[in-house]
Amino acid sequence: MLVGTVVGQVWATQKEATLEGLRLLVVQPYLRGGKETAETIVAVDPIGANVGEQVLVVYGRAARHAIGRGHDIGFQSAIVGIVDAMDFPNDAERT
Amino acid sequence: MLVGTVVGQVWATQKEATLEGLRLLVVQPYLRGGKETAETIVAVDPIGANVGEQVLVVYGRAARHAIGRGHDIGFQSAIVGIVDAMDFPNDAERT
Amino acid sequence: MLVGTVVGQVWATQKEATLEGLRLLVVQPYLRGGKETAETIVAVDPIGANVGEQVLVVYGRAARHAIGRGHDIGFQSAIVGIVDAMDFPNDAERT
Amino acid sequence: MLVGTVVGQVWATQKEATLEGLRLLVVQPYLRGGKETAETIVAVDPIGANVGEQVLVVYGRAARHAIGRGHDIGFQSAIVGIVDAMDFPNDAERT
Amino acid sequence: MLVGTVVGQVWATQKEATLEGLRLLVVQPYLRGGKETAETIVAVDPIGANVGEQVLVVYGRAARHAIGRGHDIGFQSAIVGIVDAMDFPNDAERT
Repeated sequence: MLVGTVVGQVWATQKEATLEGLRLLVVQPYLRGGKETAETIVAVDPIGANVGEQVLVVYGRAARHAIGRGHDIGFQSAIVGIVDAMDFPNDAERT
Repeated sequence: MLVGTVVGQVWATQKEATLEGLRLLVVQPYLRGGKETAETIVAVDPIGANVGEQVLVVYGRAARHAIGRGHDIGFQSAIVGIVDAMDFPNDAERT
Repeated sequence: MLVGTVVGQVWATQKEATLEGLRLLVVQPYLRGGKETAETIVAVDPIGANVGEQVLVVYGRAARHAIGRGHDIGFQSAIVGIVDAMDFPNDAERT
Repeated sequence: MLVGTVVGQVWATQKEATLEGLRLLVVQPYLRGGKETAETIVAVDPIGANVGEQVLVVYGRAARHAIGRGHDIGFQSAIVGIVDAMDFPNDAERT
Repeated sequence: MLVGTVVGQVWATQKEATLEGLRLLVVQPYLRGGKETAETIVAVDPIGANVGEQVLVVYGRAARHAIGRGHDIGFQSAIVGIVDAMDFPNDAERT
């Protein structure tokens, strides 16, 4: 489970039937100290996050729960929260 | 769950019985900023992706669902979508 | 499962309903030899860890067990212990 | 799930009871472009792979299925295929 | 599933109730060619491994099986074997 920034969106017309109508966002994991990773995750967005927002991403059963279409679906990563604030007391860093 | 590019195909004559007839593609995960990883994933392709196409890859129960042969099978990564477009609004980058 | 240091906290008002009231901490995995990673994990904290403390983090079913809200929840990483001591006999290193 | 090369074998006399008689191989994941990783995976080999062969490795439930000793066992990675050929059309690379 | 070397031990007084009495070891994954990673894993040790020994580490259901306290526990990585020998025929390397 991680925090990341929504950087984009993916569209797929030809897809597994259970993905119909799901919003798929591309998330870049958060790194400490202003570093940036080139890696990305694709997550279903059931809560309406926007590009540029920091979000909480989960996998597996937790993601299927959040997607809300039962456990027989073809995806298992999802956005479960939009981050209001992150606080790093020992860094004097606040995002 | 991730986006990647289909770069190749794998053939195995000697294999676990439940893999019979499954199409196994080699996928290279997408990195931001034009970077490239040498790592690859092998995923069952139930939807007919071609080399060079960008695809959505899932794992675990989601993959078994997408493969459609029940949960007693010897593989659990699968392609569940062929990407039409990815949009990164803050990059002025469109793939 | 890993040891890491609590470096911060995350707040999200808009979130999956089952996360209501859970304390979400940002944990930086422990590396050997005084190295530091920029990667972080977000974990539910059911036991009251503080920033700066070393903790044990688990995933999946173990995390859902530790969170204690059943298996139909939208998160599956959790802090399950606060580290008193780590001992590396062959390093003459003690944290 | 990935392709890798069998590089060695592991023996353990003192082990979890359900691993008795299982052949444990060390597999080095395949990287593109002739690169090599120092990381390795240990997988049960139910199909008779040899050192130097490229194999398909799976995890979790798929591996337990392939091992064929039910789901109450102490291992969950397995070799499920011996690769005959990999084809990378856009590379003019064939392994 | 992987091979690693036990490098240390972790103690936690304040912990999830189901971890009571479990021995928690810190394991450094094995890398090829004499390389070393700074990353570590924490695993329950149900079989009595010592610092300096090479061990087999598993995750998830396999680990819960090896721990032997059922599936409602707060940890899911475990040591399932103590390595007697690793053989890498094409390396003329034997550990």
